[in-house]
Amino acid sequence: MHIAVLNGPNLNLLGVREPERYGTITLADIETACRARGETLGCSLAWMQSNDEGSLVAGAQALRGVADGALINAGALTHTSVALRDALLAVRVPFVEVHLTNIHAREPMRRRSLLSDLAVGVVAGFGAESYVLGLEGLVARLTRAGGTG
Amino acid sequence: MHIAVLNGPNLNLLGVREPERYGTITLADIETACRARGETLGCSLAWMQSNDEGSLVAGAQALRGVADGALINAGALTHTSVALRDALLAVRVPFVEVHLTNIHAREPMRRRSLLSDLAVGVVAGFGAESYVLGLEGLVARLTRAGGTG
Amino acid sequence: MHIAVLNGPNLNLLGVREPERYGTITLADIETACRARGETLGCSLAWMQSNDEGSLVAGAQALRGVADGALINAGALTHTSVALRDALLAVRVPFVEVHLTNIHAREPMRRRSLLSDLAVGVVAGFGAESYVLGLEGLVARLTRAGGTG
Amino acid sequence: MHIAVLNGPNLNLLGVREPERYGTITLADIETACRARGETLGCSLAWMQSNDEGSLVAGAQALRGVADGALINAGALTHTSVALRDALLAVRVPFVEVHLTNIHAREPMRRRSLLSDLAVGVVAGFGAESYVLGLEGLVARLTRAGGTG
Amino acid sequence: MHIAVLNGPNLNLLGVREPERYGTITLADIETACRARGETLGCSLAWMQSNDEGSLVAGAQALRGVADGALINAGALTHTSVALRDALLAVRVPFVEVHLTNIHAREPMRRRSLLSDLAVGVVAGFGAESYVLGLEGLVARLTRAGGTG
Amino acid sequence: MHIAVLNGPNLNLLGVREPERYGTITLADIETACRARGETLGCSLAWMQSNDEGSLVAGAQALRGVADGALINAGALTHTSVALRDALLAVRVPFVEVHLTNIHAREPMRRRSLLSDLAVGVVAGFGAESYVLGLEGLVARLTRAGGTG
Amino acid sequence: MHIAVLNGPNLNLLGVREPERYGTITLADIETACRARGETLGCSLAWMQSNDEGSLVAGAQALRGVADGALINAGALTHTSVALRDALLAVRVPFVEVHLTNIHAREPMRRRSLLSDLAVGVVAGFGAESYVLGLEGLVARLTRAGGTG
Amino acid sequence: MHIAVLNGPNLNLLGVREPERYGTITLADIETACRARGETLGCSLAWMQSNDEGSLVAGAQALRGVADGALINAGALTHTSVALRDALLAVRVPFVEVHLTNIHAREPMRRRSLLSDLAVGVVAGFGAESYVLGLEGLVARLTRAGGTG
Amino acid sequence: MHIAVLNGPNLNLLGVREPERYGTITLADIETACRARGETLGCSLAWMQSNDEGSLVAGAQALRGVADGALINAGALTHTSVALRDALLAVRVPFVEVHLTNIHAREPMRRRSLLSDLAVGVVAGFGAESYVLGLEGLVARLTRAGGTG
Amino acid sequence: MHIAVLNGPNLNLLGVREPERYGTITLADIETACRARGETLGCSLAWMQSNDEGSLVAGAQALRGVADGALINAGALTHTSVALRDALLAVRVPFVEVHLTNIHAREPMRRRSLLSDLAVGVVAGFGAESYVLGLEGLVARLTRAGGTG
Amino acid sequence: MHIAVLNGPNLNLLGVREPERYGTITLADIETACRARGETLGCSLAWMQSNDEGSLVAGAQALRGVADGALINAGALTHTSVALRDALLAVRVPFVEVHLTNIHAREPMRRRSLLSDLAVGVVAGFGAESYVLGLEGLVARLTRAGGTG
Amino acid sequence: MHIAVLNGPNLNLLGVREPERYGTITLADIETACRARGETLGCSLAWMQSNDEGSLVAGAQALRGVADGALINAGALTHTSVALRDALLAVRVPFVEVHLTNIHAREPMRRRSLLSDLAVGVVAGFGAESYVLGLEGLVARLTRAGGTG
Repeated sequence: MHIAVLNGPNLNLLGVREPERYGTITLADIETACRARGETLGCSLAWMQSNDEGSLVAGAQALRGVADGALINAGALTHTSVALRDALLAVRVPFVEVHLTNIHAREPMRRRSLLSDLAVGVVAGFGAESYVLGLEGLVARLTRAGGTG
Repeated sequence: MHIAVLNGPNLNLLGVREPERYGTITLADIETACRARGETLGCSLAWMQSNDEGSLVAGAQALRGVADGALINAGALTHTSVALRDALLAVRVPFVEVHLTNIHAREPMRRRSLLSDLAVGVVAGFGAESYVLGLEGLVARLTRAGGTG
Repeated sequence: MHIAVLNGPNLNLLGVREPERYGTITLADIETACRARGETLGCSLAWMQSNDEGSLVAGAQALRGVADGALINAGALTHTSVALRDALLAVRVPFVEVHLTNIHAREPMRRRSLLSDLAVGVVAGFGAESYVLGLEGLVARLTRAGGTG
Repeated sequence: MHIAVLNGPNLNLLGVREPERYGTITLADIETACRARGETLGCSLAWMQSNDEGSLVAGAQALRGVADGALINAGALTHTSVALRDALLAVRVPFVEVHLTNIHAREPMRRRSLLSDLAVGVVAGFGAESYVLGLEGLVARLTRAGGTG
Repeated sequence: MHIAVLNGPNLNLLGVREPERYGTITLADIETACRARGETLGCSLAWMQSNDEGSLVAGAQALRGVADGALINAGALTHTSVALRDALLAVRVPFVEVHLTNIHAREPMRRRSLLSDLAVGVVAGFGAESYVLGLEGLVARLTRAGGTG
Repeated sequence: MHIAVLNGPNLNLLGVREPERYGTITLADIETACRARGETLGCSLAWMQSNDEGSLVAGAQALRGVADGALINAGALTHTSVALRDALLAVRVPFVEVHLTNIHAREPMRRRSLLSDLAVGVVAGFGAESYVLGLEGLVARLTRAGGTG
Repeated sequence: MHIAVLNGPNLNLLGVREPERYGTITLADIETACRARGETLGCSLAWMQSNDEGSLVAGAQALRGVADGALINAGALTHTSVALRDALLAVRVPFVEVHLTNIHAREPMRRRSLLSDLAVGVVAGFGAESYVLGLEGLVARLTRAGGTG
Repeated sequence: MHIAVLNGPNLNLLGVREPERYGTITLADIETACRARGETLGCSLAWMQSNDEGSLVAGAQALRGVADGALINAGALTHTSVALRDALLAVRVPFVEVHLTNIHAREPMRRRSLLSDLAVGVVAGFGAESYVLGLEGLVARLTRAGGTG
Repeated sequence: MHIAVLNGPNLNLLGVREPERYGTITLADIETACRARGETLGCSLAWMQSNDEGSLVAGAQALRGVADGALINAGALTHTSVALRDALLAVRVPFVEVHLTNIHAREPMRRRSLLSDLAVGVVAGFGAESYVLGLEGLVARLTRAGGTG
Repeated sequence: MHIAVLNGPNLNLLGVREPERYGTITLADIETACRARGETLGCSLAWMQSNDEGSLVAGAQALRGVADGALINAGALTHTSVALRDALLAVRVPFVEVHLTNIHAREPMRRRSLLSDLAVGVVAGFGAESYVLGLEGLVARLTRAGGTG
Repeated sequence: MHIAVLNGPNLNLLGVREPERYGTITLADIETACRARGETLGCSLAWMQSNDEGSLVAGAQALRGVADGALINAGALTHTSVALRDALLAVRVPFVEVHLTNIHAREPMRRRSLLSDLAVGVVAGFGAESYVLGLEGLVARLTRAGGTG
Repeated sequence: MHIAVLNGPNLNLLGVREPERYGTITLADIETACRARGETLGCSLAWMQSNDEGSLVAGAQALRGVADGALINAGALTHTSVALRDALLAVRVPFVEVHLTNIHAREPMRRRSLLSDLAVGVVAGFGAESYVLGLEGLVARLTRAGGTG
């Protein structure tokens, strides 16, 4: 099974940016944890991060015919990018939306997601663990299609 | 580790209620899956379901000094019960909010949660799997306090 | 044909509560009138009143597989109970929403019903007569399924 | 007793217009059903349909001193005509608002009625039956003034 | 192919009304241009203008079974007439909405159209040319059903 | 000087409609008072009343090149008719908006006028006197162009 | 008959302030015109202008038991002073609200008046003439109590 | 004089719940203080606390014909319970609304009270003292009917 | 202990202004009652009333270093004066907001207070008694600092 | 005549993306159709597509002094890009906004265009034909400047 | 060059009021700094502070024909005084709005300025430095009229 | 001291774009003026302009550990880029927001800044001078930390 992970703007700063909110783990640490968990789940991961909406749109377009599913943490673009939403609508690859922090406990602006109504599911608030749980949930959904719902 | 699971109104109908949305798994099935996973995680579960706001408030009050954490799927009360919110504020037990469906993909009324800004994290959209993932995330959070954030 | 009638909070006060708005007829009088009319329409009635959301949710859940249809005057819960809405969504028994007063002529808060978009139809403003007319309309709808539209 | 029935724009298309929503019964069929029921209730009916706001305003003005009550299905003008509202305010003839469909289950625009706070009562969602039930309710109200409310 | 063109209130003033906004061409000029273009496209035109909502509703009702499509410039009624919307919903003739001016560049009130979500397409801002382009687009759509999307 | 007076829906009921709000004077009485005052001001009056939007639009269109100014009490159409607004925009005859009652002291719906930003001035709340004062103000404005502002 | 005229902030600048909007007439000119008209109507005028809310509140309080009626142009305080509104509520002297300009044709902020629902009537848009017409309307209302309304 | 005191959800946690906001006094301490003060004021107290909306509705219904007045701290139900509002409307016993904290200084959700427009008065922000002051105010109001207001 | 009492616009009219709402007691009567109660509580009172925002701001500024606490009934300025709010923020003297009437039962405009989130507590609806109760509450709070919560 | 065509994010997926909404024609097919039509109209086309806001801003900036007009289908950026709007404001090249689908019949978010009030005109809903019609309209406007209005 | 500096309510408390927000510099210190900087820029300063809206309106009126420009820090009146806005509109002296704090980082109420759309420019957030920078900017603007834009 | 200056979309067009609003000075001219002023203030400048959100996010990320402060004119991204806001939150370099025009005097959309609540201060409306003043203010703030505020 092939899973793509797309990370949006400023996630490259993880470990540096607002450590009292995001902790000291880096995006590379998260990638390592996901790859380890992916191995036990029998799936390979493609990993991407960009600060650029256009590149993320291209990344989402590239999922088509290649990835069985995706994990997406679009960062700030979660709240502003209709273009990313359109790309995900177009490629129709099942995806899980993940967030490091509990976005429901932050500013109102961060409570509106342009992606989550398209997602299979949402995992938020567990830090790096959000990615790992999201990956498990995605794989469970893909392997038990029609599912337990 | 002691974990309580609180289930709100109509979750007793699971397997019956809108099967095209919620699937055919029953709440008892979910309980079984959670207990199994809890065992491997080294935690015992207390399980409760009620259609009654007052009983759920009492259930939340009873967590104090007893439970290390909680999983909460308050069903319709997620969107209407300030009293349940107040009980959770009062007992200060860390909890994870779980939903069978992706509430972000449903009616606007269901997108407002009175609980999620108090939660450690939120897991939604994976059906019965939401509970299991939520349990894992909660335990991870409790065992690695200060955490990976 | 089996019809259930569910009455919400404070309807037990009928004849006492705000008589200049609700008149002096009691809920027992309305029950008598409904049973009389039910007899001529060939249907038996189950009658329930509660001030408690949880009990009404249970009452609605109990309709499943038992009642052919329902009359529902949820009183104040009409405007606040997502849980009752969910129970009615789950059991899928056709129901008619009735109100003693013309709720459209009252405070804005009372103009929003969480139930009426699920109802077969709505009858409001005719006092006790609202129940009898609602019963007639419900039976007409049940006996002429596919109906006159 | 003299009862007037006013029908607004596009109701002349009944049986043709959106049959999956409104059914195949025509306005003439409804008129026949109402006249039949009116006879048993001891009242004569005046019947009117117009696509024109000005004509309906005139129709409402003409009720004064002539009709004991009215049934009004103003169609689309329910939601837009302050002039019709003003005419009904002026003539002060008791009226019942009827709708073929359950307007509460349709677009938000159709949930605002400029007439219903002036009405004795409202009946919606029973197709042609809405008219007959509305007629019964109106006559009950007129014959038992001060009423059961 | 038979195409009807419906023009709403004040379009009879064209060439007179606010010439700095609408230019000096008259509605008769536009009719001539449309008929000329219609001829080359192999379609006959029925032309109508009214200042009266009721007449336009009647005009729209009359399309049924007669016209293959319609061009509609409802003028001010674009923004206020639920009755005209209902007539178009009822007759289900494909239509194109046209406007002389770019309504998006005018007052907010003119940006809400009660018709455009029912239309095949919208052409606005090209003056008299809007009609001709709308006619071409309508004919293209009718002749290539299922179309280019 | 030629002045037109346009009266909208239900003003023909004056003296009958809600006498506790509008008094017992009829529209004919107001016409008489206006004509008397017009004579002393040296102006002839054209008088019109209609319950029909289309007719009032036509009435407004007919002002062009004929009337030096107008008094307009559009009744309920004050709040709903974009078509009448467009006609007045098109003919560009200076007009004064008059109301019998103080519309600012009534329901919110009646506080929005679609005409008053186009008017020379507004007079409201003086009953029949509103017309006479409005006529004086209009004539003063027309005879002292550039005016006292 | 004793009439008080209260003028709010910046009206002392009349003739200077934005002459393209307010013209070149001064407040003294308006006072002269009002006194002249007052004389023919048999009433004496008390005249006041202040830039200060507290002074205008005191001025309104002083009307009690002294003035038979008042003309009020509160300038900017029309839109912001609840205190002036309260003073007018307390003294219960009938008053007419006047404005030099047509406030309905200006910024939205100027369309909300905190006074006009308390006023007998409103006259706006006729420049200095607004005062004279307002005075006539006020005297007519005071001399024909119960009035023509 | 008989006074009832109704306490809503989570007030049983007082002394435990958010001590930095609510202090360490328990509900029993407040009851003792109220009874002491009640004695000096010559009135007996009935005391009730429930986490359950239905029970509080029943409690309010039971006031009728028994209590001369009531103190009500409905806790979270202050903001959500139309049913409790309806019960208080029905029994028409004068009541004072009390809150331990200054609800105006908290989240917007807590600033809307469904009860306070029905109350004689409101006392908020004085902790346990709010009850005692509310009791004094209520008794003053009941003993000096028509009052000092 | 030194307590200041600040009274806003129109409170000087008490006993005169809207007696059916505010009663016949004068502000001097209230001052007498407060001074009497203050004596038993061991505190001296400074008393001030003004119709002028600037004077009240100065009055609030003067509290600094002089008063131990304040009672404030800002009248209409409660709803409009950011300047008074800023003065109270600056001097940081604990104060209680009092109102004669239950402001929650009046127009929406009067439900927004710019002061109450800064207040120790709020007392409203008990007429003159509101001041006395507010004084008791304030003194209780000042003497038991850290308090009962 | 030189015309530039700018296409925004995800239009490169045309023929693939949501074929039931957008059809199977590709962007290359549309380009071919536009070039063919451009030739008969005597104009050369420059064609551009990008998923990147910055590149489209650059593309719009490059129009200055080079293009006589432009066709713009900004895709998702229509609804979010103030930067693209600013670029078009800066270069002041007349442009027509085109959309494949009738954006008025889609989600509310897609009804707000940040570009259309700057456009000469708008064509939406005709699929690939929207481009061709937009090109005709643009050329007509450019060749008949001052135009037909 | 003559420059006036107007300071609104509570700025006289500077150095005392909320020192953690506003620092310990006094208004006299700021005046000294401004006069020093004014001297090097070749302009004399008139300095004014008032807690009173009426006095500030008078102060603004007095600018006419005397001052070449103004610095205005209206304090709380920035957000509430339409009268001050009107005075500035009337005298048409170019002014710069200054604020000690970054008002965009404070409560929403403080983000609305009734003055800033009339200002030449705005400087906020630099403490006392805001005045000096505002003075420089104003002088630059006045000496290079038509300016650098 | 090292200061970075970040310029957003379309600022490269300065001198060309809307000269009647932005003047004829180019961005290079502004850079020259800033460098000159920077020299006298003893600080070196890094200068950047991009039309691309991703590049500006990267530019903001690069400030960390390098720049002592920043001037930011994000152009259109001021109103739309949560990603740029997040980058500035992450790097925590003090910055001043500058705008050539007075954004408060423009369309409502331009009044919302996603950056200004994070800024040290804001300078707007002085054209090129805004940059120079912003630089002065920034340096003053950096050299007098804890500052004059």
